[in-house]
Amino acid sequence: MKITVESIYADVVKIRETSPLIHNITNYVVMNTTANALLAIGASPVMAHAEQEVEEMTGIARALVINIGTLSTSWVAAMFRAALRAGELGIPVILDPVGAGATAYRTKTCHDLIDAVSLSIIRGNASEIMALVMGETKTKGVDSSDSSFAALDAAKRLNRDTGSTVCVSGEVDYVVVGESVITIENGHPMMGKVTGMGCSATALCGAFAAVNSSFPAAAAGAMAVMGIAGEIATEGSEGPGSLQVNFLDALFRLSKKDLKEHIRIGTEV
Amino acid sequence: MKITVESIYADVVKIRETSPLIHNITNYVVMNTTANALLAIGASPVMAHAEQEVEEMTGIARALVINIGTLSTSWVAAMFRAALRAGELGIPVILDPVGAGATAYRTKTCHDLIDAVSLSIIRGNASEIMALVMGETKTKGVDSSDSSFAALDAAKRLNRDTGSTVCVSGEVDYVVVGESVITIENGHPMMGKVTGMGCSATALCGAFAAVNSSFPAAAAGAMAVMGIAGEIATEGSEGPGSLQVNFLDALFRLSKKDLKEHIRIGTEV
Amino acid sequence: MKITVESIYADVVKIRETSPLIHNITNYVVMNTTANALLAIGASPVMAHAEQEVEEMTGIARALVINIGTLSTSWVAAMFRAALRAGELGIPVILDPVGAGATAYRTKTCHDLIDAVSLSIIRGNASEIMALVMGETKTKGVDSSDSSFAALDAAKRLNRDTGSTVCVSGEVDYVVVGESVITIENGHPMMGKVTGMGCSATALCGAFAAVNSSFPAAAAGAMAVMGIAGEIATEGSEGPGSLQVNFLDALFRLSKKDLKEHIRIGTEV
Repeated sequence: MKITVESIYADVVKIRETSPLIHNITNYVVMNTTANALLAIGASPVMAHAEQEVEEMTGIARALVINIGTLSTSWVAAMFRAALRAGELGIPVILDPVGAGATAYRTKTCHDLIDAVSLSIIRGNASEIMALVMGETKTKGVDSSDSSFAALDAAKRLNRDTGSTVCVSGEVDYVVVGESVITIENGHPMMGKVTGMGCSATALCGAFAAVNSSFPAAAAGAMAVMGIAGEIATEGSEGPGSLQVNFLDALFRLSKKDLKEHIRIGTEV
Repeated sequence: MKITVESIYADVVKIRETSPLIHNITNYVVMNTTANALLAIGASPVMAHAEQEVEEMTGIARALVINIGTLSTSWVAAMFRAALRAGELGIPVILDPVGAGATAYRTKTCHDLIDAVSLSIIRGNASEIMALVMGETKTKGVDSSDSSFAALDAAKRLNRDTGSTVCVSGEVDYVVVGESVITIENGHPMMGKVTGMGCSATALCGAFAAVNSSFPAAAAGAMAVMGIAGEIATEGSEGPGSLQVNFLDALFRLSKKDLKEHIRIGTEV
Repeated sequence: MKITVESIYADVVKIRETSPLIHNITNYVVMNTTANALLAIGASPVMAHAEQEVEEMTGIARALVINIGTLSTSWVAAMFRAALRAGELGIPVILDPVGAGATAYRTKTCHDLIDAVSLSIIRGNASEIMALVMGETKTKGVDSSDSSFAALDAAKRLNRDTGSTVCVSGEVDYVVVGESVITIENGHPMMGKVTGMGCSATALCGAFAAVNSSFPAAAAGAMAVMGIAGEIATEGSEGPGSLQVNFLDALFRLSKKDLKEHIRIGTEV
């Protein structure tokens, strides 16, 4: 698996040309933000959480994104129904374990999903990925209190246990499959001052997984595109308000030249 | 019914002067967006969905906007309670059948609402309006996969069956009552890259219906104002992020001169 | 209690340095907006409403913000659980009685919360504060139909009855404790055209209460910072769309110089 500017840009073009439908069962805080991120990159987002319709909606989608940021009983039930249906149909399922470790309910829901479903990609911050593996509650709310470097071992173990591609986002993003680790060093610290940037990254993983069946390549492409659009957006921003606006513009206009000029991707073993 | 720049602008002035309360039972994705669109045009939005309070909230509102974008059992129950109360009080009810045709649950909920309630205006994209009439599931998520021209016949039949003013939005917007069809050719394709633009159009239908008891005139005015504000906003936009921001500014500042310079409205028989 | 530019700015610095976790059980319309406002000032927001997890989440937070803007049965139950847990742990609880007076359900929920919980700060517009005291339903939806001056007596009575610091926002903001009234005359009318500005003010009360145990000082600081960031934001804004963006930038960049140049704070007896 060789990930290059060309391969990432080819995925962006495929997303723009085919507008894959991405079914999101996500949290209330970021629904609007992630729908706009998916539209800006060229995908077609749909949000649906009713137990009566999630299986049918997943059935017409090209990827399912599950984000546990604001859980409740019926939403969890819908997540399972949709994910099991996706499994039957071979539709990629992406999990964002928002706030895993902060409460037992969040950690348990993630563990139950991991046990029941074959997840294509799990993307979280360092605290969340560590909480999934350690069973410890180290998360401070939904923001990470651990470095992504410290979470790399946890990500490797989670990948071994589940077979899922595991992505730890942070100052450096890691995409882990087996002993292979892809590193992405794009992004800007101010992105942490806009709510839902991590959730948008997870949604973009869904868009990339809809057009690229190599999930490590999809995750790496999504993280690179997020980080690069964030860098471009930050250049003209006075703060997180304008960053959020400029980020969507940058995603929408993202060119191969942008990727070439900004990308900092590598591999570790 | 003659719809002119003068008649549309007179409605805008009435909205700004009277700030009609618009009760929205709408989807999670666009609540913020549509509340801001209603505020920008001069109306006063309120969102309430609890079965305990929707009838009381509708009772103090000047229009009720029902949008099925993210359904669940108790929300559907609340929609019925609010719509029936609106019917008793003579308050206009606007329906946005988001994603009708994508799942049976959405299509059925719309049919049940149409059967139970006298709807003033039904506004959807081509796929949604066709799904309401054809009973076919052609919708791709919440974005239209059909041209608005193809949906014109469906809109006419829906209008005959229900008596509701039917608005099909697309490259050309059609407002259908009987054999009379108003066409609005304002707007810009980039608006499709911002989530909730259709939902905002429906919310504005509510604001116009609150001050103009001719529902075709209200729907046409809302669609014209949406499209024109979108055109003005696109001029200074680098992408969908800035478009969303500029759109609210354009709605807020909309002048009779803006309407005059941009409007492309006509009638077909 | 002497509130000065220095004391307010010291609180801002503490928020930025310690990033206190603020647990919000708030309405769907403003979740994104208030999360971004909390991030922009330097706090760490988390939204969680499941009965299964709210007590645990409150337990790791530094303040709990309850906003009744879009109620339902299970959310009300979660609000009580979280608030009672906060009481046990001595964590400040802030209440925003959005739309109190508009429906009996909202007014009753507020009264029940006031009876059951020791609230640190209650912040609402004039209509809402009056509705809590008068038992009259004068609210027009969620926007105020009364002047904040008219509500000052109601605020004094609510403070006497509850012991809570009461903040009435409007053209002039009042912070009431006993016979002492702090007035803040910052802000701009265009802020009323952006949804969730009041809710953001309440969320900021939570951030300030997390670092300052004098609740009147916390409320006054939050209102001053809101108003001043709003004034700075309005200067470069064409309308409510750009105001919302510039507001977050202004909060993020807020300096002691900004406070000095803009602050209009006083006391009445």
